[in-house]
Amino acid sequence: MSADPSSLAATLPDGMVITDPDILAGYRQDRAADPDAGTPVALVRPTSTAEVQETVRWCASNRVPIITRGAGTSLSGGATAVDGAIMLSTEKMRDIVIDRPTRTAIVQPGILNAEVKAAAAAAGLWYPPDPSSFEICSIGGNVATNAGGLCCVKYGVTTDYVLGLEVVLADGRAVRIGGRQLKDSAGLPLTKLFVGSEGLLGIITEVTLRLLPPQDRACTVVGIFPSVHEASRAVLAVTAQIRPAMLEFMDSVSINAVEDMLRMGLDREAGALLVAQSDAPGAAGAAEVELIRRAFEDCGAGEVFATDDPAEGEAFTAARRAAIPAVERLGSLLLEDVGVPLPSLPDLIGGVEKIAAVNRVMISVIAHAGDGNTHPLIVFDPDDADEAERAQRAFGEVMDLAIELDGTITGEHGVGRLKKGWLPDQLGPDVMELTTRIKNALDPDGILNPGVVL
Amino acid sequence: MSADPSSLAATLPDGMVITDPDILAGYRQDRAADPDAGTPVALVRPTSTAEVQETVRWCASNRVPIITRGAGTSLSGGATAVDGAIMLSTEKMRDIVIDRPTRTAIVQPGILNAEVKAAAAAAGLWYPPDPSSFEICSIGGNVATNAGGLCCVKYGVTTDYVLGLEVVLADGRAVRIGGRQLKDSAGLPLTKLFVGSEGLLGIITEVTLRLLPPQDRACTVVGIFPSVHEASRAVLAVTAQIRPAMLEFMDSVSINAVEDMLRMGLDREAGALLVAQSDAPGAAGAAEVELIRRAFEDCGAGEVFATDDPAEGEAFTAARRAAIPAVERLGSLLLEDVGVPLPSLPDLIGGVEKIAAVNRVMISVIAHAGDGNTHPLIVFDPDDADEAERAQRAFGEVMDLAIELDGTITGEHGVGRLKKGWLPDQLGPDVMELTTRIKNALDPDGILNPGVVL
Repeated sequence: MSADPSSLAATLPDGMVITDPDILAGYRQDRAADPDAGTPVALVRPTSTAEVQETVRWCASNRVPIITRGAGTSLSGGATAVDGAIMLSTEKMRDIVIDRPTRTAIVQPGILNAEVKAAAAAAGLWYPPDPSSFEICSIGGNVATNAGGLCCVKYGVTTDYVLGLEVVLADGRAVRIGGRQLKDSAGLPLTKLFVGSEGLLGIITEVTLRLLPPQDRACTVVGIFPSVHEASRAVLAVTAQIRPAMLEFMDSVSINAVEDMLRMGLDREAGALLVAQSDAPGAAGAAEVELIRRAFEDCGAGEVFATDDPAEGEAFTAARRAAIPAVERLGSLLLEDVGVPLPSLPDLIGGVEKIAAVNRVMISVIAHAGDGNTHPLIVFDPDDADEAERAQRAFGEVMDLAIELDGTITGEHGVGRLKKGWLPDQLGPDVMELTTRIKNALDPDGILNPGVVL
Repeated sequence: MSADPSSLAATLPDGMVITDPDILAGYRQDRAADPDAGTPVALVRPTSTAEVQETVRWCASNRVPIITRGAGTSLSGGATAVDGAIMLSTEKMRDIVIDRPTRTAIVQPGILNAEVKAAAAAAGLWYPPDPSSFEICSIGGNVATNAGGLCCVKYGVTTDYVLGLEVVLADGRAVRIGGRQLKDSAGLPLTKLFVGSEGLLGIITEVTLRLLPPQDRACTVVGIFPSVHEASRAVLAVTAQIRPAMLEFMDSVSINAVEDMLRMGLDREAGALLVAQSDAPGAAGAAEVELIRRAFEDCGAGEVFATDDPAEGEAFTAARRAAIPAVERLGSLLLEDVGVPLPSLPDLIGGVEKIAAVNRVMISVIAHAGDGNTHPLIVFDPDDADEAERAQRAFGEVMDLAIELDGTITGEHGVGRLKKGWLPDQLGPDVMELTTRIKNALDPDGILNPGVVL
């Protein structure tokens, strides 16, 4: 598993292959900061599909593992080096073309989600998927994890917007699958197979994204609840009746952490807060706002207020998005991404409270509540070995609970390295075996992103 | 490839395995009536997953091919017998449970699309996908082909509504993938891999479908155009600005064929007709109707009328849905399902006219125009060998044209047997090889639906 990358460097433009240990050190880990990350032999920053192919061919013939990295924002260790690997960063693959008549964007993987949104908006269009990290995460990573976000509750996840892909396979061939046509039943649904495959099956070098006409102006409803229990019941009261354009949840710890960081006047006494949006036009929007307000009040909200001022609404959305970085200031984080069928949301949130109490760790819960996808954030002091161990135990117990509740260990972040120990419990041996068979069929030597998922 | 099905019959309930040649004859072909269909050794009509597993295990150990058939409405030969095969009909697998709190339907594959819609509606919910054949096609077939329909232009295709599956694999194991959770990034996206896999990878025995709140009342706009050219331009004029809830196209031949059959007063002099719908609520809907009306007029419609009467709107939708059976009365049909990126729609429709002229055959074009998916219907007299040959030539030329225009040979019907000769031209050798690798990984003995796609 070790080969001299200078023979690769010789085939690529000057400076594209980097072996400087100081630079490599910055690419070993992603945002999950896996302490078990290895050390790559080289970093390659291609600008074109042909250069990706060249790199993969070199890795294939030398049996060198290759880890693809977008913006390095994986929260589950999806882009973590192993010893002797090539780290392939897509950060210089940043082309984007908006095709107005077909309402599509054709993008290279390194462009950021926010840049896709901005380019679409400049053409009078809209790219909906909006991970909280949209300003710093790459579209390639979004595709690799089937990333979600806040608007998914109404507008779906990344896979719903991927019409076509160019993928470099494990042997260095590049294939095009799907395209700009909106419907396509020709052959196996390979485009969909690659979305969410976490780099196991190929390297995504181009994405054709479906865009929508601009979103209608959204109204925002904020509910302040005495505890998480009333708030989680209010989520179900809303989703049973309508599809809100957003329905986000913050608990008391995250409210206070955000308030500490942003000083925006959030109610520090609140037990939980819900931020909902409706983008239904005109009277229909007003009716949805009224319905949400009533649902919040009926479920015990102490205070509810609604605004149709986009700036005011955005302030609350920004508060919710700031929750992870804000809670991160309280200590080291173990970040969960568990999801359950909606009726089990109160059981999940209640169960997480118990897990926190039993293990004597702080767990702050924030959630894309409208689609049942929650992010319990386990806060611990890494210098306190006992607490760190209790945090790790709680981390596993939260996933066990999600599986018990017929849910998933990851709604949008991917399994990566941090959650793979729990995947067999969720999927069972037969589905694991099926997964392995597909992996082996497409990457028989196992050079693509080894160490994640399987 | 021949085994005595009595040993299978012995393991299944009495009467479940049928070998009566008269009954088998009715199951050899689907609606595509492939003359090359073989003769099965037995028909099996299981009611449960366990019975499907029993059947597949028997087939696996005897190396007997197994063809799964839903309602037999495939238009591309997706459920066609081969000699010596077991024909597995899902017609008796008809359970449906609506889970109101998670807004899902859990269904067996043999239930009809219309029955899913009805059960959802009875619970105050909506299952959008609506193939024109929705009253006679099964949900299992819809999933196997990733079926589309009229509302896809706004609401997407079958895969967008499949949250989970139970699948019986080629060795008889049953696996559950996905579930009722709305977001799930755990492991490879296997649920999506099976939707549209045309029976090549496994047999679908249960589907968890996402349901939506009821659709808002739709307004209908009908435009009468002097020729197909103005109408196809009008399609682009609408889709460049909004996502209509429906945008359907009929040419003169289909208008007259439907009028012959239904006597509903369609304009027999029209060169083409568009039926559009908006389901945006209130004033937004009125604005969309006005926008559609103006686009139709600007592009040369001779007459445009709009209605918010659901019954009137449904009459036009029904007319469009009746087009295939109506044109079928003019002769035998070769049924196309080609799709192109929207800006190429006029080129496709113009090109089909030329193909008809050069080959001296009648081709009627109907289309889910708003998503670029068209159904050129090639009409011929099967007793006229020369015309039948010209029709066959035209059939291939239409697919060649779609591929040239960067489109697909099938937008929603699947490749089946009738279109597989053209699939390599669309996908290319590398994607075909990738497809074969996945097929071999999941069905190494090739017993599942041999003869389709590959």
